[in-house]
Amino acid sequence: MDDGTEMDRKEVAEPLGLSPSRFSEFLEKKALLQDWGEYEDFFRFSSNVGKIDEGSVLVKKGDVFEFVQGFPKIKRAIMLAPAIKSHFADIDAVAVEEKMNGYNVRVIEHNGKLIAFTRSGRVCPYSSERADHLLEHELFKDHPEYVVYGEMVGPDNPYVPKHIYGVDSLEFFAFDIRSKEGIPLPVHERRDLAADYGLTQVELLGEFEVSEAAEGIRDIILELGKKEREGVIIKDPAMVLQPLKYTTSETNCADLRHGFRYYNESGKDYLFARVVREGFQSVEWNESEEDLEKRCLMLGKSILMPMRESIMHVQEGERLWEDVQIRVREVSTIDKFRMYLERLGLDAIFGSPELIGDEYVVKIRKMNKSTTDKTLGIIEGQLWS
Amino acid sequence: MDDGTEMDRKEVAEPLGLSPSRFSEFLEKKALLQDWGEYEDFFRFSSNVGKIDEGSVLVKKGDVFEFVQGFPKIKRAIMLAPAIKSHFADIDAVAVEEKMNGYNVRVIEHNGKLIAFTRSGRVCPYSSERADHLLEHELFKDHPEYVVYGEMVGPDNPYVPKHIYGVDSLEFFAFDIRSKEGIPLPVHERRDLAADYGLTQVELLGEFEVSEAAEGIRDIILELGKKEREGVIIKDPAMVLQPLKYTTSETNCADLRHGFRYYNESGKDYLFARVVREGFQSVEWNESEEDLEKRCLMLGKSILMPMRESIMHVQEGERLWEDVQIRVREVSTIDKFRMYLERLGLDAIFGSPELIGDEYVVKIRKMNKSTTDKTLGIIEGQLWS
Repeated sequence: MDDGTEMDRKEVAEPLGLSPSRFSEFLEKKALLQDWGEYEDFFRFSSNVGKIDEGSVLVKKGDVFEFVQGFPKIKRAIMLAPAIKSHFADIDAVAVEEKMNGYNVRVIEHNGKLIAFTRSGRVCPYSSERADHLLEHELFKDHPEYVVYGEMVGPDNPYVPKHIYGVDSLEFFAFDIRSKEGIPLPVHERRDLAADYGLTQVELLGEFEVSEAAEGIRDIILELGKKEREGVIIKDPAMVLQPLKYTTSETNCADLRHGFRYYNESGKDYLFARVVREGFQSVEWNESEEDLEKRCLMLGKSILMPMRESIMHVQEGERLWEDVQIRVREVSTIDKFRMYLERLGLDAIFGSPELIGDEYVVKIRKMNKSTTDKTLGIIEGQLWS
Repeated sequence: MDDGTEMDRKEVAEPLGLSPSRFSEFLEKKALLQDWGEYEDFFRFSSNVGKIDEGSVLVKKGDVFEFVQGFPKIKRAIMLAPAIKSHFADIDAVAVEEKMNGYNVRVIEHNGKLIAFTRSGRVCPYSSERADHLLEHELFKDHPEYVVYGEMVGPDNPYVPKHIYGVDSLEFFAFDIRSKEGIPLPVHERRDLAADYGLTQVELLGEFEVSEAAEGIRDIILELGKKEREGVIIKDPAMVLQPLKYTTSETNCADLRHGFRYYNESGKDYLFARVVREGFQSVEWNESEEDLEKRCLMLGKSILMPMRESIMHVQEGERLWEDVQIRVREVSTIDKFRMYLERLGLDAIFGSPELIGDEYVVKIRKMNKSTTDKTLGIIEGQLWS
């Protein structure tokens, strides 16, 4: 006989095609993982299961489980004009929003607090504290059915610290509002709603007829590139068709600089993809000999210089690391975040909290053990088999 | 009861720890593969089996099987000075021979003909015909126990055609003579023997005290680089320690140019390794700002320009290919080589044989379907997921 809990689970799980016995099976097979500490109400899908995407979350509410859809993978245009023409063939116009360079989170309200999930569906304690502090709760109270998607941007960023946005500490920029099942609001409806509730949003950079979009976006990309910004998301205003992303050459090269600094940590796929993007952009934009030469030099420098610096650094007896920092209200968040990074397998050294105003700044040194060890080995005469 | 054949197999196989039943088992499991057509006397190991390396060959001689050791993998110095110091710590001096850029083969005599095995242990019909024609048979008659290792170099080369060596068609340059079990002759003994029998050999570029070798080799590498040559093999003159290889920046970049021309065919590991070599060489040689800038530009151009050319080529409606040619004495070799490439899964279009002197030249167009299709897809708006 089913007990009450299983009945309730069934109620929630059935729309997903997830029976109570399957729920238990997924837990056993670790396709579904329970979060830890104060976040034991959250279960994330660690792989795609039927129509449920990896990173989707089940939220325990009393005896009921609520589903929060994973972060949709946004496909990339490699050649802008043909990609737009082909992908948006059935609509007239597209909206272009800025793709900011930070890390993206999904935010929901749970027991009166805002909770931020990373792409993988983990609750990030730092992002959750920041979201709870940065975002107006009103929207979530009035619309508990919504999930707000946004980019965490700025220097007090343990993942992708950037100073290019004029953000002092860390800001949340909303770029999507979706139902918990993942159905998005149309672009203007979402922007209006976010504005009404005082949410900071990514910038709407333009709207174009599909036939003129590639040219318009090229101009936008060139301007964004000058400011070292990342790129754009091209959207069907109705949000029926999937969005496309496209990035600046400058961000490709910045990624390569970061990637080759820690060359043994960075995936070869990651590095290769960025190089290929440069090749196609250079052809599509039909560059002058002079611009082409500049692009080649920038590409070569982006690869070689950071690798050189890392090697020389290790030659001088140092290890390789990346310094980041966080800024928190609650001292308890520091320990939670330290445990969170540990569970992710990151080797990070936390400095002492420094009280600045009513917040604590903590410097974190993320150690790049793999590149340090590989470099040290080669410097000591290790061979490449 | 064992029959005569199995008894004989046993005789040969036992020194390898390979019993007749294991022999059959390896054949069944395809760890041992029989060659085809007129080469049915040859069986190659398609993977490492105990102490037998992949690419090793068993040669059927009547009812007896003779073992030919695989090609030894030569490790690479990434930083020259520490690698030499560490690897050759127990000896006083090293010999430095040129590493030529072609493809390497092992040559034996079988039933009065010379047979050339590729690294994988396959009999290459083209290389075998060339070896039979280019090499003096005398050495093999006098020393049936030896295998001659060499590089096939020159423009009439279906794998790595190069015009940089002043070779008109194709030459075989010996760099090793080993027993069939793989025991090498010492460097000078081998060079003398090869000279006595009139074999063309790779150049001996110098001999150095171990403590001075890195500096001497650096000068050699810089000179070789100016001529677009590949690099060096650093050897223990007694051939007790394993050799090391080290290559010029110019050959790294030439590899990248070729690799990025066919970017979807080339392995990411292949490309990544060459980029990393540039980083370490640049640090070890403590380059001036000016030389460093040149290296960055050369690296960037080696990556971007060939990719651009391929993309533009496909944009113009063409497919991507690589034109090579072979030059043979026997018309029958052409068909055998065509079948050989087919069995390797290569898509190659053979032109009509053209009689030049007493030989036939055949142009071969090797099609790069994977890069063509990927590029065409992107040009037509395909997304990068």
